Amino acid sequence: MTDYLNERTTTTKEIFNGKMISLQEKEVILPNGNTANREIVKHPGAVAVLPITKEGDIIFVEQFRKAVEQVLLEIPAGKIELNEAKEKTAVRELEEEIGYTTEDLQYVTSFYTSPGFANEMIHLYYTKDLIKLNQRADLDEDEFLEIKKLSLQEAEKYMQDVPINDVKTMYALLYCKLFGLDASC
Amino acid sequence: MTDYLNERTTTTKEIFNGKMISLQEKEVILPNGNTANREIVKHPGAVAVLPITKEGDIIFVEQFRKAVEQVLLEIPAGKIELNEAKEKTAVRELEEEIGYTTEDLQYVTSFYTSPGFANEMIHLYYTKDLIKLNQRADLDEDEFLEIKKLSLQEAEKYMQDVPINDVKTMYALLYCKLFGLDASC
Repeated sequence: MTDYLNERTTTTKEIFNGKMISLQEKEVILPNGNTANREIVKHPGAVAVLPITKEGDIIFVEQFRKAVEQVLLEIPAGKIELNEAKEKTAVRELEEEIGYTTEDLQYVTSFYTSPGFANEMIHLYYTKDLIKLNQRADLDEDEFLEIKKLSLQEAEKYMQDVPINDVKTMYALLYCKLFGLDASC
Repeated sequence: MTDYLNERTTTTKEIFNGKMISLQEKEVILPNGNTANREIVKHPGAVAVLPITKEGDIIFVEQFRKAVEQVLLEIPAGKIELNEAKEKTAVRELEEEIGYTTEDLQYVTSFYTSPGFANEMIHLYYTKDLIKLNQRADLDEDEFLEIKKLSLQEAEKYMQDVPINDVKTMYALLYCKLFGLDASC
């Protein structure tokens, strides 16, 4: 068993409490009895959806990400609102970001994005059953994006031309490739 | 072009400057001329390596991650030290974490782990040419881990039994599966 690796918290200091994240500094007791500090970012968690059209294309969004000062090609995603069910977040983000909805979400997996310093987890879904809305639902007031429909091959080409891409989108595309999800069937 | 999505910084407030991360709050001008605040975690970047033995097994580490209060199965990885070349970080982490070195690192890709709030990027490599050291190099003094050698199938089974896993490791395993890297050849 690996329980002996656990680090028990002795003190927690609240450093920052923001709109999207908060930051804590924790003092912990290490397996050898010494103490150390851990810097921890708290995030509410997010949902991402790989939306595949009947023609086998994927609908992406292009979004400027201030943290990396770059426009990234990403699958639709967003953070889970307080007490919101994950599936509801998934559908809401499709409606807001790309103007589609679905009644057939397929769960893929969940992952921690940066467990060395943050508790953010992303729950990944796909849908091959997209229903176009007459009008896109309202985005958050500080959110601006472009919708981009690409085949898997086009998306791979796009991302090859960008030095660094978004991991949830890269994971979703590898998954898509491995399981042949993009084939129209 | 998507340049119109860019957000220009008007002010930057330094909130925290820690050992591993720092935190800034930036005021930006949105594409519609309004202003918004962005909370941004700065991280030096990291390197991860998928180490594959001659028998086709993968060498993982199990590590307690305070941010998620969980022991995770991960491929060897670590943050880039000041002015350190990425390939040097990769070899150093193999030597410190699993007690192997290599002269044949293969670059896979780089990704942003959480571009919504952090600039962390991970550079992913693999090696199929591992050389065992007589003795593992010293870990950081606050780092404790278990080494675990598993086949790809065993690793998939392990991770199925854990609700949420580490994304860099999951990406590396999908990549391994897609390109048949684990086959001993």
